[in-house]
This record gives sequence, structure tokens and C-alpha cells, in this order.
Amino acid sequence: MGGTTIKAEVTDPADGVVADGTVPTPKGAAALEAVAELGSRLIAAAGAVPVTAAGVVVPGIVDRERRIAVYSANIGWSDLPAGDLLERAWGLPVAVDHDVTCAGWAEWVTGAGQGCDDMVFVAIGTGIASAVVSGGRMLLSRAAGRESGQPGEIGHVVVRPGGPLCGCGARGCLEAIASATSIARAYAEVSGAAVAGALDVEHAAAHDDRARKVWDEAVFALADGLTIIATLFAPERIVIGGGLGRSGDLLLTPLAALLPDRVRVQPVPTLALARHGTRAGLAGAALLARRGRLSP
Amino acid sequence: MGGTTIKAEVTDPADGVVADGTVPTPKGAAALEAVAELGSRLIAAAGAVPVTAAGVVVPGIVDRERRIAVYSANIGWSDLPAGDLLERAWGLPVAVDHDVTCAGWAEWVTGAGQGCDDMVFVAIGTGIASAVVSGGRMLLSRAAGRESGQPGEIGHVVVRPGGPLCGCGARGCLEAIASATSIARAYAEVSGAAVAGALDVEHAAAHDDRARKVWDEAVFALADGLTIIATLFAPERIVIGGGLGRSGDLLLTPLAALLPDRVRVQPVPTLALARHGTRAGLAGAALLARRGRLSP
Repeated sequence: MGGTTIKAEVTDPADGVVADGTVPTPKGAAALEAVAELGSRLIAAAGAVPVTAAGVVVPGIVDRERRIAVYSANIGWSDLPAGDLLERAWGLPVAVDHDVTCAGWAEWVTGAGQGCDDMVFVAIGTGIASAVVSGGRMLLSRAAGRESGQPGEIGHVVVRPGGPLCGCGARGCLEAIASATSIARAYAEVSGAAVAGALDVEHAAAHDDRARKVWDEAVFALADGLTIIATLFAPERIVIGGGLGRSGDLLLTPLAALLPDRVRVQPVPTLALARHGTRAGLAGAALLARRGRLSP
Repeated sequence: MGGTTIKAEVTDPADGVVADGTVPTPKGAAALEAVAELGSRLIAAAGAVPVTAAGVVVPGIVDRERRIAVYSANIGWSDLPAGDLLERAWGLPVAVDHDVTCAGWAEWVTGAGQGCDDMVFVAIGTGIASAVVSGGRMLLSRAAGRESGQPGEIGHVVVRPGGPLCGCGARGCLEAIASATSIARAYAEVSGAAVAGALDVEHAAAHDDRARKVWDEAVFALADGLTIIATLFAPERIVIGGGLGRSGDLLLTPLAALLPDRVRVQPVPTLALARHGTRAGLAGAALLARRGRLSP
């Protein structure tokens, strides 16, 4: 579940896609009804392939034990018993967990972070957040309630004091400079041009100095953000995912060049692109369905 | 073991001090000989009280499994088999571990962090470093070698881009502004006065505007550093130790006032002073001796 769209897949044991679908995300509790309907449609579409379990990953604060979607400012829900409702709708065991955490889990278990006991997955899209593996275990939010706290909120670390205003109310957060949304907005402001997204800015950077400046500022801010991750979590590897990861080496090459001079008191982590790409959330949901719960 | 002095204690099961001593830290491998001699002297001084195990905590990179002091730029040693050497010298089981990690462990198990599954201990002295408990477990360095990496190096997170030069070579690290050493040096530079340490600056701040400015800059930088800790680790509590902790409420009160406006996407952690004060390293070494190893 994302703030804009809900994506779903039925996968077979080899991770092959049997059925899939996407619907826009309604606001509030209706979002969960849309999940229920989309899921039922795909279970029917899977036909003879028996669907035996489901994993649902949601943004915001999640109580994984009680399977409650505690809070999402973006979707506008609170205290929804998602697990119970969907289990009733589908007649299947349903696990519920946090989107970025599960995407990072999938990259760790079956993706670009395989074999690393210390790795961080950074998702750069509408926002920027991370999932952290330390000592062979995932860092998870505390059990219950809005006072839970979600480790890894790198998007809201200030890297440019006094910089652009962030949605959280602070100035100069990494997310306010380097999220896909912020990159597109910054270029639209300086150029007056309508851009579809950050990848347009990255393409325009080859011939347009204003685009180059916006893109470079985002890359330098990301290098500073990854340096903070390296300094505090000391990972062997940082895996980059989310929509901006589609820039591939155009993003990774400059970041890898900037890190060695910045990461001074830790080993310099290797950088890798998310193997599951923008599908990491779905891969995390599939893993969640198969394992029954996030096993850190 | 610190960069300046080696402190040792023989403690009884109730944590009462039976014998103690301090010697200056020699440079290089001689530092370990000084530990061996001091330890032997205290074991003799303990007299009828039988000493049954020892814990040794050292700065830099430590291989806890092989009990090797891998590297300390400060002391100037590398690859010292500290555990084997001291075990031979004392005829006791000896555990070897990292200083700030063990100080934080002691605060977690028997100090100001008791009962918290998510807490961070921040030691502010000559340098600034932290030890992190997440989900009821300590984050530890990877096993072996100089490529190990030590989680929690908050002293080397840049909070003032382009700011004062840090010992690590970067500019604007938290440690370059807010360590006890940096506070004393900054005041000496603006005032031309010789000061013994950061606590003198804190005292002078009541009547000297230059001292007030240096102190305030350190407190604001610390507030920004603790905000980054809160944003990335989401702890319930942050425990402040090290020499600067002796400022007590003069440090904690302004920090507690600054955090709520800065920590925007996580619960605001409570702040507490280290219960073991500047003795947290010794308390960690005693715990290490009793348990035989750091049990995360």
C-alpha cells in the first residue's frame, strides 16, 4: 500500500507472478476496503492456483503483533484492525507489517543485501526512509501505539541547516532536497517547466545547467545522508531502492565517488541497487506471507 | 583504559570498591604492561578478598571473540592479544571489550537506562561516542579486523557543514564543537584565557558573554546531534555520560527544552544523566568480569 496506489500480486513458490493488479489509494479507512476488494479479485483470478496466505505492507506506524495499522498521516487512517478485517475478507492467514521495513527485509533475504549481517536499505521515492540490519537482525519499531518510533528515518535528518522546508516542519531535511518529489519540484521552480518526475530532471541534467544544479544538489545531499548512515550504523553495504533507484549508475557512480572522502571513522560501505527495484515492497509482502511474520 | 589514564578497581558482589588505582597511560604496547602491573597491584591489595575474574575495556577497535585490541590511534597500538597476555599475568579469566559499548551496557543493565528496550548512551568527554540498545539488544561491531566498524559514532556526524575542523579531517563534526576538549579550546581561543576544562567554561557562562556563546553553541550542536540519534534509532531514552555529564541539569535542562521542537517524526526521548557518572566505564568492566562476556 502506498499513498498513491495499492499494488498486489499473487506469486507462486518460485516468485513467479500468477496475477497482479493496481488500484488508486482512497483516503482513510476506505483504503483498506480497496485492499480487500483487490485481493479478492486476484485470488479469484489465480484460478486453480490455491492462495494459502497473504502479506500486507503499509506505511506509517504498524503494530505487527496485533496487526493494526496504527497511523498514517499520508493515507489518513488510524487504529485500523487490518489483519482481522482482511483475514475475514479472504479466509486466509494475513500478516501485516511496515512497508519500508519489509522492502529492506526482502533485499536482505533475497536481494542486493544477501549475506550481509550489517546493511541498510534506503528507499528514495516520494519520501526517503531506511530499513536497518545490524548484527544479523533487523531493527524494528517498538510494539504498540503512536509512541512506537520507527528506526531509520534518514529522510528527516537535517543535512542542510536552514535549507528548504520539509513536510515535517523542519528545514533542510534530506527528504526536502533529495526525494524524487523534491527534485522534481525544485526543477519546476527554477525552470518554470512542468516535469513528470525526478528522472526527467536527471535526463535534462545532460544539457540543462539548471537541471544539473538541482540534480547535483540532490546527489551531494544524499552522499551526506549516506555518510550519516555509515557513521551511525557502520553497515558493510547500503542498498538503494525506491523510484530514484531507477537512475541506476547515474545515481550510484557519483555517490560511490563521494563517500570515501566523507566516511572517515568507519569502513566505507559498498553501494548496490535494490535487486527487486521498485518491486521491493511487493517482494517484502510475499516474504511476509510465506514466513507468516517478519522474522528479524 | 583511556587515552590519558588507566583506572582500575576490585569490586565486591555488591559493587563496593575493595581496592582501586590510577596510572597515566603510556603510549603503544607499553600501555598493556601498565594495565598488567596495576591489576597485579590491586589483586594483591585486595588481600583476603579473592579476585575471580577480570574485565578490561579499551578504546578503538576490539575483537571481543579473540580478545585482541585491534587498533587505537589514540593509544597507538595495533593487534595486541590483550586477553591472552593479561590472563597469563593475573591467572584469571579475562574478558576484553570496547569502552563506550561497555559503559553503555552498564547504564542499560544497572544504570539510568534500566528497563528500556531502546536506549542510547552518549559519552561526552575528550571525544563523543555512543552505545545503542535497539529492541532489547546492543548494537555491536562486526567480528574481526580494522574493517570492523563501530556503530554509534555520533561524534563524527557533521552538524555544522563547513564548521570547525575535526581530528578526523572533516569539518563541523559534533565532536569538534561539543566535546569537553572542543569547548575548552574554543573558549581559550576567543578569551585568550587558560581554562582547565569545559566545566570552567560552563561556570564562566553565568557572567562572561564569550563563555556563554561557546557553551550555547555546544548545547545547540548537542541538541542537533541528539535529534539525529532520536531520528535514526528511535530510543525511548538517551543517557548522557562522560565528563561533560558532570554539568548535570545545566546541560540536561536546555537539551530537554530544545528536543521537542527538533524531533519531529519520532517520539521525543526522555533524557537522563548516567547513573554511574564518569565511572560508567569501570562499571562496564566490572559487569564484563562478572558475566564473562558482553551479552547483548
